[in-house]
Amino acid sequence: MTDDRLYYEDIEIGARHSFGRYEVSREEVLDFARKYDPQPFHLDEEAAARTHFGRVSASGWHSCAMTMRMLVENMTENRQAGLGSPGVDQIRWKKPVYPGDVLRCETEALEKRRSQSKPDMGIFKSACTVFNQDDEVVLTLISNGMIETRDPAGTD
Amino acid sequence: MTDDRLYYEDIEIGARHSFGRYEVSREEVLDFARKYDPQPFHLDEEAAARTHFGRVSASGWHSCAMTMRMLVENMTENRQAGLGSPGVDQIRWKKPVYPGDVLRCETEALEKRRSQSKPDMGIFKSACTVFNQDDEVVLTLISNGMIETRDPAGTD
Repeated sequence: MTDDRLYYEDIEIGARHSFGRYEVSREEVLDFARKYDPQPFHLDEEAAARTHFGRVSASGWHSCAMTMRMLVENMTENRQAGLGSPGVDQIRWKKPVYPGDVLRCETEALEKRRSQSKPDMGIFKSACTVFNQDDEVVLTLISNGMIETRDPAGTD
Repeated sequence: MTDDRLYYEDIEIGARHSFGRYEVSREEVLDFARKYDPQPFHLDEEAAARTHFGRVSASGWHSCAMTMRMLVENMTENRQAGLGSPGVDQIRWKKPVYPGDVLRCETEALEKRRSQSKPDMGIFKSACTVFNQDDEVVLTLISNGMIETRDPAGTD
C-alpha cells in the first residue's frame, strides 16, 4: 500500500504555495464579534465610522480563524501528517477585513528541524500571507507546526 | 464632566491584573472547530485519542478567541480608550483546553511608547497568561495595543 501522506521529509524550505478562497459574510463577522470581540467598532456602523476602520470590520481573531480554515483545507487536501502547533511567532493585522471581502492564502516554508526528544516528529516554521480580492495584504503570520517524520532514523 | 476613561498615560508598566472567567462548553468547542479548524482531533473522540491531546480539545484559535472575550470585557469595564491592535508578537499553546475547563486571565503591561506620527495615540505591549481551573497555564500571548492619549502634548 502506498503511503501518500505528506511528511516532515517532504517539506521543502523556500517552497511557496497559493490556495484558499474565503468569502467573508456580514452575518459571520457580526456573529464572531458578538461572541468573542464585542468592541463597538466590530459591531456597529456608527461606532466604526468614528474610528480608522471606517466601517464594520472583522475581529483580527476572526481573520486568523478564517485563515486557519483555509490552512486546514489545504493540509487535508495534501494529506499532511500534522500533529498540531506549539504556537505562533508573529501576527500582523495589516488592513481591515470587511464583509464582502474574499480572502486567499500564500505560504512559504521557512525552516524545519527534527525533534530531539521525539524522533517520529519534526517541527517547521512557515510564513502565511493573506490577501483580499484587491491583492492587498490583510494579515501575515509566522507559525510553527509539528508533523510526523516518515523515517524516524532520518538525518535531513 | 469627569472623563473616567483609561488612557495611555494611565498604563503602568509592570502592573498586573487578574480577571475573567470563561466556561468552555463542548458544544462551543465543536462549533468553532467545525467552522474554522476541522482537524479530526478537534472534532472526533476516537481521532483525538490517537494523538497527544487524548480527547477532543479546543482549537488553539478558539482559545485565543475566548481569551479575547475576557480581554474585551475587562477593557470595557475599565473604560479603556482602545484603538485596536496592530498585531501579536507571540502565542504559545502550552496545554490543551478541554470542554468543561474554566479559563481566567492574568496580564502584565511590558512597555509603552507614544506614536511619533499620531500624537493622539500610544502603543503598548502586554503579556497575557491564561490559566485553567487547576491553575495550569494553557496559553500565553504577547500582544500590542493602540490606545488614545489623554494629552497629545505629553512626554511620558
